Amino acid sequence: MVAQAVEPNLPADRFAGDAVFDLHRGGKIEVTSSIKVTDADDLSKAYTPGVARVCTAIAEDPSLVRRYTWKSNVVAVVTDGTAVLGLGDIGPAASLPVMEGKALLFKEFGGVDSVPIALDCTDVDEFVETVARMAPTFGGINLEDISAPRCFEIERRLKERLDIPVFHDDQHGTAVVVLAALRNALRVTGQNGTPRPIEDIRVVISGAGAAGVACARILLQAGVGDLAVVDSKGVLHEDRPDLNPVKLSLARDTNTGGISGRLVDALAGADLFLGVSGGTVPEEAVAQMADDAMIFALANPNPEVHPDIAHRHAAVVATGRSDFPNQINNVLAFPGIFRGAFDANASRITEGMKLAAADALAGLISADDLRPDYVIPSPFDERVAPAVAAAVAAAAVTDGVARP
Amino acid sequence: MVAQAVEPNLPADRFAGDAVFDLHRGGKIEVTSSIKVTDADDLSKAYTPGVARVCTAIAEDPSLVRRYTWKSNVVAVVTDGTAVLGLGDIGPAASLPVMEGKALLFKEFGGVDSVPIALDCTDVDEFVETVARMAPTFGGINLEDISAPRCFEIERRLKERLDIPVFHDDQHGTAVVVLAALRNALRVTGQNGTPRPIEDIRVVISGAGAAGVACARILLQAGVGDLAVVDSKGVLHEDRPDLNPVKLSLARDTNTGGISGRLVDALAGADLFLGVSGGTVPEEAVAQMADDAMIFALANPNPEVHPDIAHRHAAVVATGRSDFPNQINNVLAFPGIFRGAFDANASRITEGMKLAAADALAGLISADDLRPDYVIPSPFDERVAPAVAAAVAAAAVTDGVARP
Repeated sequence: MVAQAVEPNLPADRFAGDAVFDLHRGGKIEVTSSIKVTDADDLSKAYTPGVARVCTAIAEDPSLVRRYTWKSNVVAVVTDGTAVLGLGDIGPAASLPVMEGKALLFKEFGGVDSVPIALDCTDVDEFVETVARMAPTFGGINLEDISAPRCFEIERRLKERLDIPVFHDDQHGTAVVVLAALRNALRVTGQNGTPRPIEDIRVVISGAGAAGVACARILLQAGVGDLAVVDSKGVLHEDRPDLNPVKLSLARDTNTGGISGRLVDALAGADLFLGVSGGTVPEEAVAQMADDAMIFALANPNPEVHPDIAHRHAAVVATGRSDFPNQINNVLAFPGIFRGAFDANASRITEGMKLAAADALAGLISADDLRPDYVIPSPFDERVAPAVAAAVAAAAVTDGVARP
Repeated sequence: MVAQAVEPNLPADRFAGDAVFDLHRGGKIEVTSSIKVTDADDLSKAYTPGVARVCTAIAEDPSLVRRYTWKSNVVAVVTDGTAVLGLGDIGPAASLPVMEGKALLFKEFGGVDSVPIALDCTDVDEFVETVARMAPTFGGINLEDISAPRCFEIERRLKERLDIPVFHDDQHGTAVVVLAALRNALRVTGQNGTPRPIEDIRVVISGAGAAGVACARILLQAGVGDLAVVDSKGVLHEDRPDLNPVKLSLARDTNTGGISGRLVDALAGADLFLGVSGGTVPEEAVAQMADDAMIFALANPNPEVHPDIAHRHAAVVATGRSDFPNQINNVLAFPGIFRGAFDANASRITEGMKLAAADALAGLISADDLRPDYVIPSPFDERVAPAVAAAVAAAAVTDGVARP
């Protein structure tokens, strides 16, 4: 009974034969039915008239929507296309291949259904209103590729307003995986099996966008005492007159040493360099870092410090690339985080749930396996999503955002 | 690598063991990937870094979004939950089982991907804005279960504003199937193999909501000359002071006989009674209809005229129920209509496409097979969606809304 889709009636294009484009032809995801409808009896249960009883039951007891619809397992991947990968503001339509990719990864790695929603609106009020209006449909909201500092206000307002998890992956997914890698980098550079105390390290973060801000926040939560964030104008400190409110707040909570100047100034004696901004850091600056330095250069496709150079001056090196060891990849976090939140029926994703995700991720590497070039599991390690999900679900109960 | 979903952490409910509710547990649809991602190479093509080239190509040539994303095959099923089945305004969450059912039918019958979007906003301006903002994501908009007369303005404004098909199924899906059934009812009650001319029949429609208005409009388009619409206050005519603009416009375009009064008055001598309102029509009124009368009593679950009574006075009887012959079911139309529109890459759904769909549907029943109790195909007739799709795609080209 199915009419078959034909290739849309479109003119030929110059990408035919390109393996990446061929893979994308017709899109990467589909909506399928999870039940069979083969006769009138099936139809009368799945659709009218049977479905009316399910609707009535939900109208009388709204909590039943989570049991008798897909709401309990579906997340909207919402963007406005203003900060897509490293491509910038390419708009909603051009962002769709990334959103579909995200949806694909949600399902493949976390068993989470998700729907790309690319919005043609960049005004913060309009964006928030639009997502709030569609929220009854979804069990969670994954914000994606929204430019800073708009992304911070959008996330804050949606979290206040909605009773479902709201999670900006560019911020928190990155932060969770960075913290996990750092936990293990501290283990591998510790003495006699004792990790270096996180309180003792000095961290320099290059980048004060979505990822930089969230990484700074989670590292402070995790106990890092000395942390400086650097943007394109230099180190964030309270006296800079050019800071937006998010950066000003971050400046107040960081840089206890009161340093100023450029990135190269901040790096002298630092223990961890975390690059989430792009750009290039000169080798001379990296060479001034402390002994047993850690370099996480996450810019894609060109790390801020090439791994070959980084290894000359650091004990642990991580990048965002799959062709070097220690890939910091958000896919290690977001599928398991939403899986765990959904399994627990959590109303939000707390700081505790993110910290638990990082610890679970780090804990997958045993002391025997831990090496400087293996501080973070592979995305294809099948233990990852279940371990993250279990830790997140447990933390949801501990934090009081889910029933025991 | 997939973390398995567990039953959401919810208290037990009283519906366990009910076959309809058991079928709905966890929802009826899911999002699956249409490609495989099993190693880092796959990941680098489907997601970063490979996906960036696809995004860039679409940013440079927006038409490519239809070839390299699922946009060309995905429809949003959008409601505000204000007129769900016969249940009325039960709100967005309680409408979800119907929207999921619709999505399931789109895929099973038409090979069309679709996503339920239940909006928490009933203001017409807000509804239109919200759908327009999410439109870059979708290849079409199927409006569903929105109360009249709001549904008319919402559809009109979205059609003006968007360059993708917008289709209110409660209106046009019903209208297409009704016209198809009428075409065959006129064939089966014709003389010597010649159908009765549609211009010669007098039609009475009970109901001036979404379905009633659209059925009136398509029947006028198809050539019916004498048609009266009746609402709860009586026959629509220009002198009634209580009509909203939609009903007033319809009054001007119908009721050329200038009749007034109640439904029973209008039915005297009528050839077709079309019930899309609920309520009960007394047998005495039906008995006054013309010879070879046709009764389409579509209210669910209780037809306006029970088929046993209708058969005493009519040559052809149809209902909305699957347990009687001649079921007028929208699933005969919407999957094939969107399949055809998508296959043609049509920018809208025209009147001509709807008429073509009705004719294709009617034409599936050959002269040899045609009988008074078989004027419309079964929803499980595998020829339906392909035939409707082909006719709709061809009409899209004829009507200039798709490239040849």
